[in-house]
Amino acid sequence: MVRIFGIDPGLHITGWGVIDYDGYHLKYVSHGTIKTSPADKIERRLGTVHRQLLDAMKNTAPQEVGVEQIFVNYNPASSLKLGMARGVALCAADLMGLKIFEYAPNMVKKTVVGSGHAAKAQVSDMVKRLLNCGGLDDLKDDAADALAVAICHAHHDRVCQLAM
Amino acid sequence: MVRIFGIDPGLHITGWGVIDYDGYHLKYVSHGTIKTSPADKIERRLGTVHRQLLDAMKNTAPQEVGVEQIFVNYNPASSLKLGMARGVALCAADLMGLKIFEYAPNMVKKTVVGSGHAAKAQVSDMVKRLLNCGGLDDLKDDAADALAVAICHAHHDRVCQLAM
Repeated sequence: MVRIFGIDPGLHITGWGVIDYDGYHLKYVSHGTIKTSPADKIERRLGTVHRQLLDAMKNTAPQEVGVEQIFVNYNPASSLKLGMARGVALCAADLMGLKIFEYAPNMVKKTVVGSGHAAKAQVSDMVKRLLNCGGLDDLKDDAADALAVAICHAHHDRVCQLAM
Repeated sequence: MVRIFGIDPGLHITGWGVIDYDGYHLKYVSHGTIKTSPADKIERRLGTVHRQLLDAMKNTAPQEVGVEQIFVNYNPASSLKLGMARGVALCAADLMGLKIFEYAPNMVKKTVVGSGHAAKAQVSDMVKRLLNCGGLDDLKDDAADALAVAICHAHHDRVCQLAM
């Protein structure tokens, strides 16, 4: 059994989601979103993302972390903000001694929905079906994306902890 | 008296420098550089910057933090890397409960050297003169830039802790 923590980092909203995978079955464990206000200072927003991710990791005790790769095809100002949020998220995983696995966004969609160009709503619907459990009625896009990358990691042969 | 921690964040090299300021005099306290290897995984590099900055802050117990503003005038890939390093640096300061003050690079140079377009070597030379002490013979550019932004903060009327 391996417990996987998926992260969808963002300065405004960071989604996270946790699943268990035994090599055959996926099981939903937990999810959440971390919101920060543009009215707050940047260091406070980054500190909030970092602390709440650390708390979620401590509470769920995952063994591996999945995160989407970033493709920097838009403007530098967005890249800088996204970079800062991503930095504190990856750093939180490293502080917990966790290995991080990165997946291209279209790989995540292809794994979960079957198409690399699926819409956000399709990803969210398939995540709910694949995890087949209650407690996901209020699933937001960012947490759905985080669960999707965790599912993507489970379905790839890079999962390390099953051998233990 | 206020103790100021300056940071020059970077994924490859992060410089930091600490000074005391009593309203009239600057006093050198400490400085250092944090290097990470491109051969290491990104989360390990970010974790290293974060941990070593936290250690330096714990060891020197500053009251305020100065950091250069970033102008995103170059490519998105560089902005992303710089953003990640900057994110973990700002987040470390927030974890220590420290206020962060940002200064434009030409404001830092103007304050320290007298010209907003000074070369790196001039900044380094003036930092050594202004702090007028031994122990700075091995001062590297990144740590000099970090001390320069700390000096810049000291010379502005935003310093809070002197009133205490």
